[in-house]
Amino acid sequence: MTSTTTAPTSATIRVAVLGADGRMGRTTCAAVEAADGLELVARVEQGDDVTAVLAAAGAQVAVDFTHPSATETNVHAALDAGAHVVVGTTGWTDESRGRVADHLARRADEGLDLGVIIAPNFGLSAVLAGVFAAQAARYFESVEVIELHHPDKADAPSGTATHTAHAVAAARRAAGVAPSPDATESGWEARGADVDGVRVHAVRLRGLVAHEEILLGNVGEQLVIRQDSFDRASFMPGVVLAVREVVGRPGLTVGLENVLDLG
Amino acid sequence: MTSTTTAPTSATIRVAVLGADGRMGRTTCAAVEAADGLELVARVEQGDDVTAVLAAAGAQVAVDFTHPSATETNVHAALDAGAHVVVGTTGWTDESRGRVADHLARRADEGLDLGVIIAPNFGLSAVLAGVFAAQAARYFESVEVIELHHPDKADAPSGTATHTAHAVAAARRAAGVAPSPDATESGWEARGADVDGVRVHAVRLRGLVAHEEILLGNVGEQLVIRQDSFDRASFMPGVVLAVREVVGRPGLTVGLENVLDLG
Amino acid sequence: MTSTTTAPTSATIRVAVLGADGRMGRTTCAAVEAADGLELVARVEQGDDVTAVLAAAGAQVAVDFTHPSATETNVHAALDAGAHVVVGTTGWTDESRGRVADHLARRADEGLDLGVIIAPNFGLSAVLAGVFAAQAARYFESVEVIELHHPDKADAPSGTATHTAHAVAAARRAAGVAPSPDATESGWEARGADVDGVRVHAVRLRGLVAHEEILLGNVGEQLVIRQDSFDRASFMPGVVLAVREVVGRPGLTVGLENVLDLG
Amino acid sequence: MTSTTTAPTSATIRVAVLGADGRMGRTTCAAVEAADGLELVARVEQGDDVTAVLAAAGAQVAVDFTHPSATETNVHAALDAGAHVVVGTTGWTDESRGRVADHLARRADEGLDLGVIIAPNFGLSAVLAGVFAAQAARYFESVEVIELHHPDKADAPSGTATHTAHAVAAARRAAGVAPSPDATESGWEARGADVDGVRVHAVRLRGLVAHEEILLGNVGEQLVIRQDSFDRASFMPGVVLAVREVVGRPGLTVGLENVLDLG
Repeated sequence: MTSTTTAPTSATIRVAVLGADGRMGRTTCAAVEAADGLELVARVEQGDDVTAVLAAAGAQVAVDFTHPSATETNVHAALDAGAHVVVGTTGWTDESRGRVADHLARRADEGLDLGVIIAPNFGLSAVLAGVFAAQAARYFESVEVIELHHPDKADAPSGTATHTAHAVAAARRAAGVAPSPDATESGWEARGADVDGVRVHAVRLRGLVAHEEILLGNVGEQLVIRQDSFDRASFMPGVVLAVREVVGRPGLTVGLENVLDLG
Repeated sequence: MTSTTTAPTSATIRVAVLGADGRMGRTTCAAVEAADGLELVARVEQGDDVTAVLAAAGAQVAVDFTHPSATETNVHAALDAGAHVVVGTTGWTDESRGRVADHLARRADEGLDLGVIIAPNFGLSAVLAGVFAAQAARYFESVEVIELHHPDKADAPSGTATHTAHAVAAARRAAGVAPSPDATESGWEARGADVDGVRVHAVRLRGLVAHEEILLGNVGEQLVIRQDSFDRASFMPGVVLAVREVVGRPGLTVGLENVLDLG
Repeated sequence: MTSTTTAPTSATIRVAVLGADGRMGRTTCAAVEAADGLELVARVEQGDDVTAVLAAAGAQVAVDFTHPSATETNVHAALDAGAHVVVGTTGWTDESRGRVADHLARRADEGLDLGVIIAPNFGLSAVLAGVFAAQAARYFESVEVIELHHPDKADAPSGTATHTAHAVAAARRAAGVAPSPDATESGWEARGADVDGVRVHAVRLRGLVAHEEILLGNVGEQLVIRQDSFDRASFMPGVVLAVREVVGRPGLTVGLENVLDLG
Repeated sequence: MTSTTTAPTSATIRVAVLGADGRMGRTTCAAVEAADGLELVARVEQGDDVTAVLAAAGAQVAVDFTHPSATETNVHAALDAGAHVVVGTTGWTDESRGRVADHLARRADEGLDLGVIIAPNFGLSAVLAGVFAAQAARYFESVEVIELHHPDKADAPSGTATHTAHAVAAARRAAGVAPSPDATESGWEARGADVDGVRVHAVRLRGLVAHEEILLGNVGEQLVIRQDSFDRASFMPGVVLAVREVVGRPGLTVGLENVLDLG
């Protein structure tokens, strides 16, 4: 653990990174240091006393990229230190999110408006692709999803593509849109997985990282929303955005899409 | 001019098409006839008395695909007949739109809530691409636009791409985003047109019709929004949508994007 | 049947179209009329005496877009009339092709060097995409195929994509290349059809016609070969090319790729 | 400099890397070590006596990723040591290549058949994209090139895109193909650079590395050849291929495309 003790200025948000010695944590530290208006005040590693370190460093926001087994404890510890929290670690359940919401409510009752943003994906291109696909889905007769990843990935389709398919399907159901037309009689194994009525295709190709393409079609027209994640550095603009937003957004927010201003 | 005189039912919208003998008009007639809940009650051609025909046919909505020199007169004539209007003809100015708004206000004062939707583009994929590009623009360091058309097109870049570039530029200015980085020192002629600070590239290729691609980039990630218009039939879902919406949307609405439900 | 009797000139190839009243036949007639150096001398329809009409018209090349049940008979009749033949009709077998080769050999023995080109696909973009994919296949660790069609197509994957997959697989086997890596453990239904060891994905989307994409990947790089067939008019440059080539290419040639000069 | 002295076996090619301490050199060393049938026997750095080190190490092939000012001297030194050479360094001229050809001829006269492969680009996807574009160019009415790079690139269009445009233009001239049709009357600045009659567009976008897209169009169809270089590691399959090929390819070969088997 390292901390600096410069006094906070109104223009600067003081940020602590939890899991600072992990891959995402190191990248986050670098991103915080490079971002205008953010100051890295603590690198918290496994074994550190989170509440004590954050309090000593005067951290206003804690960013958690640790481990599913540790993240909930870390969030409560950060709230105890009076810090807002941005969480990129996975493994959250309705129950664990509920306990965080309760904790936030207690702090609010004490007069301290803290915010927590939990996001499974901080990639702006991935999050926006999903949002736009859901917005567009009701206006097209057909929609299919293709996700493309490196060939070392063990599961298919990807969690992001599955999430997109469900969002698309929900939007179409809500608007009363019929299922995508499909006259296929033979060769179903080429037609991809059926995820909530939406066909999802998984490509595995050496050289790729993580990519998603949503195709929407009407008579005579097509809309394609494509996103490419080339590098884990791509999560950093989303993390920095969440840090800037969380200080003004009390309570629990789940999903980066709910932080974005798409007005 | 032909008209049918079936009595309107609550479940059906009675539609007249102005310019029914033109290319877009014929396509519109076919689309109205094919659409659930719409009934084509009049095909109005040049020389017909618009108000009289619409009144006789009991048209609730008039769709105008005529000519820039005729469209404003047609809209006022349709409002005189008590019909809502959907306009796909170009050539509108602030002044002509203002006169329609005034007319609508007078009818509202008389107790008749009529709506007019004027849209330069009814292609859902094109409209949504522009909307999504503007929504996403503030979240990416770089943005460029590529439009691709058949090689018989005389102007570059396309009106749609120019519109998108302005929308993207405005969104970035409003959010205080810096211009896209660009270290180009030589070869500027390859870097496309500068439209409001956004680089726009025009491709002309036999076989293509009308296509637009908006590329947005951050460190390690890319978002691409692509739309293809293969055929003028692609405007029809947007026209049908506007017909359904205009009956419940009093006053003047400009741009199909303002009719869409992107909540 | 119609025929014109202008004397052939050295600069012009006299062409008869068999199946001139079908969709492909009509398009072919228009393409022949529009092509430099080709002259349409006969439109042959069902019931016409092919040999007699071709002989009367002085046709040098017959183009057959008829029906699988008629095409072999037509080819023999055209050869009897001393015409070269370009065949776009499907349904050929090793046996029927063998009988045409035998017929060509007999005519050659008689001192008449005639050529026949049978091609299942005259789309240059589709044919070249398949050729390039096969050429590139041995140089990449991974390869997958995505085909995209309108949703009224009953079979999947498309014949073209299946053909491409086999060509790619054969090229890799010949070069001793290992199968594409794939760590998939769950969700195989999203991974497409296994065609000769190559994953093939079929997308069905309203607005599309016929499209194919071959993705090839190595560490740090990707090659994508994409072809779009928007319209049956796209077959015409290939048909015109085959007409020009067949007069100088005695014997039987199967596949447009074997007519192309890719030196 | 480090060298190993294991005796060469018939199944293994003994490789020395010149410029082993540079970025490309280090990547090459790793690739050689990882490749079946290749053995890294020397890492040669600036100041080392190239001939002596290669001779001592028993190197059969030298790979040069040094500097334009050093590369020609290195090649002659390697030939003096009896090694074949693969060169990825730029800066070669007709004159310097001529001197290498002369040197190779002298060694051949002495009974030693050595090979040198000089390639400005070892990226297989980039090289193949250029080859395929040139092969296809004569068969399409229209062709344009889009290159996309990171925004820190100072020159436009890229050398690779310029090379592709010239190859495409030469192929079309040789086949007597007319220039791509273009009815543009206004807005030429959006139409890209004119490189030998081919329009080339340069996109600069954060997140991208080096990408090229060649679009070819006929009535009703499109062929798109796209290549992505995500990482300098992408050069390694091409380097390894050249090492394997050079031992059986006496004389001077310029361009990786001339090493590929595209039969």
